[in-house]
Amino acid sequence: MPFTPRTPRVVAARRLQRRRERDATGRFLAEGPQAVREALSRPRTVVELFGTPAALDGYADLAAAAAGADVPVSEVTDDALAALAETVAPQGLVAVCRHLDVSLEAALASRPRLVAVLAGIRDPGNAGTVLRTADAAGAGAVIFAGEAVDPYNGKCVRSSAGSLFHVDVVRERDPAGVLAAARAAGLAVFAATGHGEENLDDLADDGRLRTPTAWLFGSEAHGLPEELAGDADARVRVPLHGRAESLNLAAAAAVCLYASARAQR
Amino acid sequence: MPFTPRTPRVVAARRLQRRRERDATGRFLAEGPQAVREALSRPRTVVELFGTPAALDGYADLAAAAAGADVPVSEVTDDALAALAETVAPQGLVAVCRHLDVSLEAALASRPRLVAVLAGIRDPGNAGTVLRTADAAGAGAVIFAGEAVDPYNGKCVRSSAGSLFHVDVVRERDPAGVLAAARAAGLAVFAATGHGEENLDDLADDGRLRTPTAWLFGSEAHGLPEELAGDADARVRVPLHGRAESLNLAAAAAVCLYASARAQR
Repeated sequence: MPFTPRTPRVVAARRLQRRRERDATGRFLAEGPQAVREALSRPRTVVELFGTPAALDGYADLAAAAAGADVPVSEVTDDALAALAETVAPQGLVAVCRHLDVSLEAALASRPRLVAVLAGIRDPGNAGTVLRTADAAGAGAVIFAGEAVDPYNGKCVRSSAGSLFHVDVVRERDPAGVLAAARAAGLAVFAATGHGEENLDDLADDGRLRTPTAWLFGSEAHGLPEELAGDADARVRVPLHGRAESLNLAAAAAVCLYASARAQR
Repeated sequence: MPFTPRTPRVVAARRLQRRRERDATGRFLAEGPQAVREALSRPRTVVELFGTPAALDGYADLAAAAAGADVPVSEVTDDALAALAETVAPQGLVAVCRHLDVSLEAALASRPRLVAVLAGIRDPGNAGTVLRTADAAGAGAVIFAGEAVDPYNGKCVRSSAGSLFHVDVVRERDPAGVLAAARAAGLAVFAATGHGEENLDDLADDGRLRTPTAWLFGSEAHGLPEELAGDADARVRVPLHGRAESLNLAAAAAVCLYASARAQR
């Protein structure tokens, strides 16, 4: 018999939609075949896989991969799946995963040449999008610093489109400590801010983007904290050629990260 | 007495939340002080301004600018404002505006060096964000082509963060006609697509981005129609250095438009 919304294991998994429960258990939910596939591709990440009979049949390769890794695979009713999923069309699969963040030290020890630091970014969609863009630009680590959103928030996981499982994710309360550690690891620290005194194009022209770099991004609503931006090696603005007053966070991060990626090659 | 949600002019304005009504009347709603300020900065754009007494007092400069342009300014109750606005915190102001799109011919006659074509982009948030990014990158025109979202959709207007009022906006049903007209106006046409055979970095390296350019962007869900991409001068992919399978639309558009902006300077 498939599990229903009232089956204790479904009830327990559903609690992971709340941050407190994720923090307490060190687990989170990944929904949809793409995320489940990425999660299964990492050793010891998936704890349990729930699927409707139709989805477990349609994605038999994923069900087999889970079983092959000794991950329990449980059939659930459509209602139970809907209760576990946060989207309207969850495509029948939800995995319970272990937190996968690494320490700041471990992330920097692998000597990434490009790092994104999300300082106090509260919007999960924005954070997940920047995580995805950082992965695409070749960043080795994405650091959620200060009062940032939980990277395991369902919307952040979905917006990352799998990239949560690709890069070293770090959670670090103290943004100033992140800057110090990044600098000690040989990274230049550039703060992306609309009020920056340096123009991104100038940094590209004079070769300063070629160096291993940690980019600091702040929240769309509040920007980067003054003292954090002040502590960076440069405060950099994306040039505004037209009449827009600013770029949104995802666009600004894409332009900065890709400028570094291009300069570093 | 301030207008209530039942006052006929409020009822009529509220109908503009529906596309059919916008199409029939050639009018749309812009909410919040930033959008209202941008709208008022254009001649003959604002038809009527509604505001709560507190907002008309707090933004007395906007109320005065409207009155100075012979735009009727009407006090409304908080309930009426909430009915007119589509956001939770509309900051007390909503303007009824005239459609401001121009013909394809007029937009190209001003010889823009950078143009964004949104081909069949249905998501209003995505469309508005790309419009904002195109403005920031210095694009002179943004063309909504094919079965694209209505640029006057409330979410598109808000996501554009004022840029709807800055660039030449064009609505054109036939995307193939847009390509032909752009080419006739001396623009290279580059299709941004994850499957493109050319790498954006290579176009930058060999100087092909220096030419006046129209960038074609498709919807995040469906991409660019095959025949439209095939008709472009080049099909261009943003390089993926990490393990992400793709970029989201806003990020890809930002990287492409800024690559052109940088090359053209």
